[in-house]
Amino acid sequence: MVDSLQSLAKLFREKSSFVVLSHIRPDGDAIGSSIGLALILKEMGKKVRVFNEEGPSDPYAYLCGSIPVEKTPVEPPTDSPKVIAVDCSTRERLGESFLRWGIPVDANIDHHPDNPGYAAINCVEAGALATAELLARTALELGLPLRADAASALYVGILTDTNSFSFRPLRPETLELAAALIRAGADPETLSWRTFRNFSLNRFALLREILNRTRFAAENRIAFYRLTADLYARTGTTSLEVENFLNYLQLVETVQVAFMVEEISPQLTRMSLRSIPAIDIRPVAARFGGGGHRCASGARASLPVEEVERQLLGAIVPHLLPGS
Amino acid sequence: MVDSLQSLAKLFREKSSFVVLSHIRPDGDAIGSSIGLALILKEMGKKVRVFNEEGPSDPYAYLCGSIPVEKTPVEPPTDSPKVIAVDCSTRERLGESFLRWGIPVDANIDHHPDNPGYAAINCVEAGALATAELLARTALELGLPLRADAASALYVGILTDTNSFSFRPLRPETLELAAALIRAGADPETLSWRTFRNFSLNRFALLREILNRTRFAAENRIAFYRLTADLYARTGTTSLEVENFLNYLQLVETVQVAFMVEEISPQLTRMSLRSIPAIDIRPVAARFGGGGHRCASGARASLPVEEVERQLLGAIVPHLLPGS
Repeated sequence: MVDSLQSLAKLFREKSSFVVLSHIRPDGDAIGSSIGLALILKEMGKKVRVFNEEGPSDPYAYLCGSIPVEKTPVEPPTDSPKVIAVDCSTRERLGESFLRWGIPVDANIDHHPDNPGYAAINCVEAGALATAELLARTALELGLPLRADAASALYVGILTDTNSFSFRPLRPETLELAAALIRAGADPETLSWRTFRNFSLNRFALLREILNRTRFAAENRIAFYRLTADLYARTGTTSLEVENFLNYLQLVETVQVAFMVEEISPQLTRMSLRSIPAIDIRPVAARFGGGGHRCASGARASLPVEEVERQLLGAIVPHLLPGS
Repeated sequence: MVDSLQSLAKLFREKSSFVVLSHIRPDGDAIGSSIGLALILKEMGKKVRVFNEEGPSDPYAYLCGSIPVEKTPVEPPTDSPKVIAVDCSTRERLGESFLRWGIPVDANIDHHPDNPGYAAINCVEAGALATAELLARTALELGLPLRADAASALYVGILTDTNSFSFRPLRPETLELAAALIRAGADPETLSWRTFRNFSLNRFALLREILNRTRFAAENRIAFYRLTADLYARTGTTSLEVENFLNYLQLVETVQVAFMVEEISPQLTRMSLRSIPAIDIRPVAARFGGGGHRCASGARASLPVEEVERQLLGAIVPHLLPGS
């Protein structure tokens, strides 16, 4: 699945106009990789724009510098740019606006294991912990210009996808590439503050509320909370701000599975599940038609929130390990 | 302040019995460095024991393997071992039991900038982010035997003192040494789970309680909480378990200084302060006779907890930056 990096270098060097796209509901690796690659291309004297279906990404606005993230337009730019997809496992996840363009993807640079290789050039390495890691190595190996702003964007991609180098099967190469990005000018202290210590007071209140609601089951091997539709309005937050709060439930050493159920409407519930490395939680999400990663899955169900909670508790128990 | 690593190597190679000591109220770097060094010495065929004033360190018990952390006895072992201090800025902080031995420290390996060099051989490097980093480099440069168990202990020292590679002015060398420890057999995923996701249910309840007690002042640029003497008994926790909870207050982007005041007794109060990188908080701790690092200081005061809280709020405000 790895086309030669030389083909990629040839594309970058020979063409003059590019668009960089990443997946819907972008995370730090999607945005960091997009901006990092765009800044490299810009430094090579290329014309480049960064698009995402959701438009500008507030949490990572500090990375944008001279290249903004724009909402993907419904028609492609008129100068026939080459299309580069980063951190996106399928063509569809590039978003509806891009799909309407009806044109092929020229290069696909990704680390998702289920990426089928949907572009002319496919650089997919499932072993990389972040697409930004792959891009950092590509830039270093091909001698592409990696200035401090590009290095910073790629550093944030690695920082977010590795959860600040924690709770992941980290490769030594990832740490060495992060070190190389620091040498290229990324400021790890500032970047980690901006990336992780960016809660609004309202989001802090939401965290407090969630910890207060957290309950435990199955000899404290399951921790969970339930969100009702009024919560965001009441705390002045949005559903994007609740992402990653399951990490806090996973602080407890007895907890093997943490989950949340969120009432979207009286008959529609969103669920999100996390597990320790020894447990594959995907089968539980799959029962509700969902999917994801081994230790981080999710789904939606056309059922009331209490009913999903009840069914989940029953479905998770057979996957638990004996308590210690 | 850096004696040649060769003097250290000579000591390790020529002598046959060692004790390794670290500072009172040991953290992950104190314990990780002690055990890491002891395992290296053991692999060199030496007799070695690890002592700490507080005795065995529960949170890091998973590191001990074949070398337990023992409570420092009031008399030295009878075979006249060489005394190695790790991660300890002063002789006094090795603890009362050791001081009663009335013997000199043979080697002092540390990264605290205020270390005066109290031993015969002093390897103090303030630029290192953890004493474990210094030990890892020493082992690699001198070709000392670094097996997976020693590498794991040193990895945890780096992981804890760098706050999982975040919120610190990280050097690329630190990440490269961490990568070398992974190559030597440290398992970063398992070690970060054991190090950071080890809360008891009681400690989780303590966190919940603290977040509920957290208050904000000075246009939300200060966040703080007060602990009373009954809290630990009521939640079944100890004062060691409250360490690092100020990190959670620092999640809020407006917060420049976070502090806690803890009632030890009606006329004795412990305080702990944290600041953003742009603020040096040591002068505030110094007003109460305390000290520490630029962004993490503490002190004790013979005053009631309410009075210390009041004085701290007043003392911090002049150090704040304008709100955004």
